[in-house]
Amino acid sequence: MHILTRPILEINLNNLLDNYRMLAALAAPAVPAAVVKDDAYGLGAAVVAKLLYQKAGCRTFFVAHAPEGQKFAGETPEAQIYVLQGIGEDSLACFANTPRLIPVISCPQMLEFWKQSGLGGRKPAIQIETGLNRLGFREDELAALSDDDRRLFGLVMSHLACGDEKDHFMNAHQIENFERLKQTYFAGLLASLSASDGVFLGGRFHQNMVRLGAAMYGINTAPYRQNQMKNVISVMAPVLQIARLPKGDFVGYSATYRASSERKIAIVSIGYGDGLPRSLSNVGKVFFKTGGKLSEARIIGRVSMDNVICDVTGISELAVGDTAYLAADFYTPDDVARDAGTIAYELISRLGKNTRFDRRYIGL
Amino acid sequence: MHILTRPILEINLNNLLDNYRMLAALAAPAVPAAVVKDDAYGLGAAVVAKLLYQKAGCRTFFVAHAPEGQKFAGETPEAQIYVLQGIGEDSLACFANTPRLIPVISCPQMLEFWKQSGLGGRKPAIQIETGLNRLGFREDELAALSDDDRRLFGLVMSHLACGDEKDHFMNAHQIENFERLKQTYFAGLLASLSASDGVFLGGRFHQNMVRLGAAMYGINTAPYRQNQMKNVISVMAPVLQIARLPKGDFVGYSATYRASSERKIAIVSIGYGDGLPRSLSNVGKVFFKTGGKLSEARIIGRVSMDNVICDVTGISELAVGDTAYLAADFYTPDDVARDAGTIAYELISRLGKNTRFDRRYIGL
Repeated sequence: MHILTRPILEINLNNLLDNYRMLAALAAPAVPAAVVKDDAYGLGAAVVAKLLYQKAGCRTFFVAHAPEGQKFAGETPEAQIYVLQGIGEDSLACFANTPRLIPVISCPQMLEFWKQSGLGGRKPAIQIETGLNRLGFREDELAALSDDDRRLFGLVMSHLACGDEKDHFMNAHQIENFERLKQTYFAGLLASLSASDGVFLGGRFHQNMVRLGAAMYGINTAPYRQNQMKNVISVMAPVLQIARLPKGDFVGYSATYRASSERKIAIVSIGYGDGLPRSLSNVGKVFFKTGGKLSEARIIGRVSMDNVICDVTGISELAVGDTAYLAADFYTPDDVARDAGTIAYELISRLGKNTRFDRRYIGL
Repeated sequence: MHILTRPILEINLNNLLDNYRMLAALAAPAVPAAVVKDDAYGLGAAVVAKLLYQKAGCRTFFVAHAPEGQKFAGETPEAQIYVLQGIGEDSLACFANTPRLIPVISCPQMLEFWKQSGLGGRKPAIQIETGLNRLGFREDELAALSDDDRRLFGLVMSHLACGDEKDHFMNAHQIENFERLKQTYFAGLLASLSASDGVFLGGRFHQNMVRLGAAMYGINTAPYRQNQMKNVISVMAPVLQIARLPKGDFVGYSATYRASSERKIAIVSIGYGDGLPRSLSNVGKVFFKTGGKLSEARIIGRVSMDNVICDVTGISELAVGDTAYLAADFYTPDDVARDAGTIAYELISRLGKNTRFDRRYIGL
């Protein structure tokens, strides 16, 4: 007898490291920076940043918010940590305490705030708008900068909107905008345009620095071809119970599934409270390894907070305590996200936040 | 000038307490238990459990996993903490260390594990299946229990599938099943059938104990009528930038929004990395309080990890640093979840997990 109750989140650090090295090699001689915002997409920024710093020589990191960078600054003593959301009153103390945090300035008001802050010892980055219409100086705002203003910056950057679609017109549009604006306002300055997706676009998209995030975590950021990245994340949970589902019976909240014939069901100890999207209700897949082979089951009924129910009719030898695979090398976060109607970025960012997992770092 | 960068999650403990008291009064004389699993739906189990223990005399709590209960057991020294996912090898130590953790046993194999565990000093609960087809002893398994087995338990419980639909046939089906099975196998034992939704069904649904979760957190679990609960959760984020969006320009990843006329846009410092569902892309609402009135804006383009972009054309007086409201008393988690195509349970469970929020407990 084997009774287990807790879901497991397994993070393969060796694969993550391999992915980083592969991307860095592809982008060379551009400097590889690691994007560890959002707690390294949920995988643990302190662990990931320290790993890349120690094992791969990474010396440049990107976070979204200053406190995120502050948390691992001590583990990465010579690294520069760029802060994408920039600096404000609510992060000033953080920047003051940690001189290696470098704000990315995205609008004139924030630049004014930076100049008045009195903080020194670092050259901020400037984000410029090239087509995404998100954060960044618009061209009229760039034209209004003084020469002194422009000399404040140590990096000029922008971000692609459609880098995951190789032939999207937006890519050509953005690279042209970027190079023109850079040449006009920041000639000679260190430049960065691409995240993981842009690495695969090659050539001019690499500029001087690439920002490696999603693909490093195993996500296919070039979905127009087979994924070249190694999978980093696996999610497992134990079978809590196996039961007969009589013909005509309903399953789960709001009775959204009805058995058209007698079924065998397994109740698995994971739910949306663990970050499994509720949109997998009645569509998601669950895998089992029984009798030496891999079997696929379907989630039936609604995903609830702590459990999913799946149809295991025909999967013999399945027992209470056996492991259900919700994400794995053979059913990657990209696959799960597709079934859930979202992207793997959102999926792994959710999964990783949850504290009920037995979280295991493997591979090193 | 007012520059801010961080999102804020505000939790109104006074409203939570009022909700608990209102539900407890509705269910009296049934014992009110508080469901604080999934870190109190993301709001902080330690804070919520301690509050209800100290201010409302709550002495019974429900969590999903044993480590969740262990975390606040010290703050609630006389409370019983039921563990819905039960007991297994991976939680045995937790139960051994914390005798006030009480497993909910949901299948014969787990009962066997409990009996072999050698743990004493508490009477587990038994979960029985009445129509949800999730965790719980099926009738043939109940019939197979010995008299000694049945005497092990201190509580018999089940869970409603459709309690949020007042006239759903499943409610009558489940209460009949529950009372019949209870009478047959556990006559005289303490009984619990209903969570928040069942409290509003009244009468027989209250049994001896109700398990107050969602409605306590402000969610409308009786959506066939106006919500009677007070809102507990507000989400705010600062405007990082305001920009002109030229006619014909695209917004955000994959260029899913195109401006059919010139617009004014605001970039707000919150995204799916903070738990805001990406399914709000191009449909979600954002509110501003400017010039003494409340204005509504629409999210345009895709929600990204750290930012949303919204159309603020026509909202005059809006400035960088102003507050955007993503959830509030006037746009509750139920409203946000409806727009996102999910339920508030999933929404608040996600929001509350995120560590980038400036988290504020107010109201007490």
